[in-house]
Amino acid sequence: MVVGFEKAVSATKSVVTSAKKAPTTLSSDRVINFARGDPTMYESYWRQMGEKCTVVISGHNLMSYFSNAGHFCWFLMPELDRAIRRLHCVVRNAVVDDDRYIVVGNGSTQLFQAVLYALSSSYDPDTEPLSVVAAAPFYSSYPEETEFLRSGLYKWAGDAYSFEKDGAYIEVVTSPNNPDGAIREAVVNRDGGKLIHDLAYYWPQYTPITGKADNDIMLFTFSKATGHAGSRIGWAVVKDIEVATKMVKFMELSSIGVSKESQLRAARILEVISDDCQNSAPDKEENFFEYGQRLMSDRWEKLREVVKRNGVFSLPKYPQDYCNFIGKYTDPSPAFAWLKSKDGLNCDNLLRELKIVTRGGTNFGVDSNYTRISMLSPDDDFNLLLERLSAIKGTTINGNN
Amino acid sequence: MVVGFEKAVSATKSVVTSAKKAPTTLSSDRVINFARGDPTMYESYWRQMGEKCTVVISGHNLMSYFSNAGHFCWFLMPELDRAIRRLHCVVRNAVVDDDRYIVVGNGSTQLFQAVLYALSSSYDPDTEPLSVVAAAPFYSSYPEETEFLRSGLYKWAGDAYSFEKDGAYIEVVTSPNNPDGAIREAVVNRDGGKLIHDLAYYWPQYTPITGKADNDIMLFTFSKATGHAGSRIGWAVVKDIEVATKMVKFMELSSIGVSKESQLRAARILEVISDDCQNSAPDKEENFFEYGQRLMSDRWEKLREVVKRNGVFSLPKYPQDYCNFIGKYTDPSPAFAWLKSKDGLNCDNLLRELKIVTRGGTNFGVDSNYTRISMLSPDDDFNLLLERLSAIKGTTINGNN
Repeated sequence: MVVGFEKAVSATKSVVTSAKKAPTTLSSDRVINFARGDPTMYESYWRQMGEKCTVVISGHNLMSYFSNAGHFCWFLMPELDRAIRRLHCVVRNAVVDDDRYIVVGNGSTQLFQAVLYALSSSYDPDTEPLSVVAAAPFYSSYPEETEFLRSGLYKWAGDAYSFEKDGAYIEVVTSPNNPDGAIREAVVNRDGGKLIHDLAYYWPQYTPITGKADNDIMLFTFSKATGHAGSRIGWAVVKDIEVATKMVKFMELSSIGVSKESQLRAARILEVISDDCQNSAPDKEENFFEYGQRLMSDRWEKLREVVKRNGVFSLPKYPQDYCNFIGKYTDPSPAFAWLKSKDGLNCDNLLRELKIVTRGGTNFGVDSNYTRISMLSPDDDFNLLLERLSAIKGTTINGNN
Repeated sequence: MVVGFEKAVSATKSVVTSAKKAPTTLSSDRVINFARGDPTMYESYWRQMGEKCTVVISGHNLMSYFSNAGHFCWFLMPELDRAIRRLHCVVRNAVVDDDRYIVVGNGSTQLFQAVLYALSSSYDPDTEPLSVVAAAPFYSSYPEETEFLRSGLYKWAGDAYSFEKDGAYIEVVTSPNNPDGAIREAVVNRDGGKLIHDLAYYWPQYTPITGKADNDIMLFTFSKATGHAGSRIGWAVVKDIEVATKMVKFMELSSIGVSKESQLRAARILEVISDDCQNSAPDKEENFFEYGQRLMSDRWEKLREVVKRNGVFSLPKYPQDYCNFIGKYTDPSPAFAWLKSKDGLNCDNLLRELKIVTRGGTNFGVDSNYTRISMLSPDDDFNLLLERLSAIKGTTINGNN
């Protein structure tokens, strides 16, 4: 399996050097990459925010390893802990009562691995590794993140729908799901199961917030919440102090904690969002989530229109729901479009003819007639995508494959 | 095995709640912790540096996952790459020619694990895990970092001096060594060996720079070079592009790269150091390494004096050497003092009677009559250490144990 980032780079190279002539005239000839979920579309929002999001860090600041020496998560800055809890209270997307523990990580990627360690490290070393499953289509990086070190503690066991082994297991529940945007619940539901809820996309710009998530282990990431992927900040909300403490141990052994510069900046930006959301002035500006929800809805509407017109692909349909945060019924507008080719053709190959790089279904545990397109690209790229998809017709494609 | 950070916190707690009455009258009753190498002593230097080290980051900066999309290490910021290479050129402590590859990590801790993965992942999955060794006394975290995920790729195989297995292996060479400050070379020297050189302390404040290190894989860390431990920035200088590329793959799977905020700040601070080192004005101020070398020498002189007077402990002796950077003969002044009790007593227990928390020899693969004391603590703590060590006498200690 090829992981997203490497694939994105190498795929771009190979298209650049070996692409056939595109089947239609394109307004620009460049390759556009939608394989990765780089959330650069939010940049213009943050540019407008001006100085209130700016952090200034002097040479002597943030030098110690420790952020809060007496605390179980000694590298978590108290201001980030507070900002995370406040934001969840404001958005009402997760329970963060005082008896829940926050663990910060270098992105939710590292926290996912910290949870695997926390849930498996107390098992008898003579037993076989704990099975890790997720319902297909699942996030393309789960299998490789679970497998790459060939741990004796845990192993990837594939699609949760076909998992039949007895005994302990871990199921990852991603909701809304990456890649297909579906709202999900656990599917195995057997004794001995432990659940990890990856709620990276449970924010108002992607889906209606219908209630406070209250799961044992919930993962969130700054990348998808606000678009700050370069900061590598994720957080877990954990019910069990023993699990949280083992996650901290993992973080300690893996990287001795998390960048304080990033934590400081994340705290600032999350506080600004909370402030804006709680501002009740009559002439108040659109807050970050309102902005994001409007932009994403608009993109989805345009994409659905193009897909409907060209007749080559289909997109999932999502039920409208009441969003407690926005205060009205909204349509889900996931961070990824999960495109299916109607004729069972290889979706990735089809799109590469148009110099559109996407991440094919086989990476997500399903067939190659599916592919995933990031909806978080810059405007220019997204508009080029629409233009290129508009230019194709069912007959054109069939003639080129 | 208990890792340093957890131990530091829990040890402090246990001493606070259960310490016996100290054997002598102390000017302050508080527990002082020298178990961890938190380099907070450099704070006052950086405070004096004022605005030239300050970084200002706006809300819309540094948002993408990517720092340099076409580069093999796509998350490494080009300005950090340049700043690292420039600093090594200025200090003349490592070869960083254009054919050497820089990989950035969340501290050298994560890079150490990235190297283990890079050197072992191409081995046949049916063979047994690759042995990882280091000569005792070795850095206390190597065994646990190697073992905690029970990887099928590599395993900790203990003291390099007693390693007798045939076939491939990895030896970690830490020079100057943590904990004992010794200048080291590989000790196994057999076919099939791969070396990791951990050069965290190969900087002028800790040891004379006698030549440019030119090893296959060299690890450095911002924490020990400049004292910025909270930033979690480390870097590797690697000769073989295949090894470097696999390390990048590890970083991608482990944490999708490294905080850009930290990279930006590290680049700025390293550039300031290089500027100051290259400033040849006649009235120029002391540069960072000159400052560090003076401070460390002074601390070592005081510590040696106290240790000599009380007669209970001994310290290693180091040969003076010509430092190419400082431009004169200097005494090594390691980041840790490796204390040995003359009567074979448990060094940690002895010092805990004085409310001094240290990290005992058993953590480093040797006996408990050794202990490691950080020399990088704040002045107040270091002065208390001297005061308490001065107050004991051989007879006092023997009467209390």
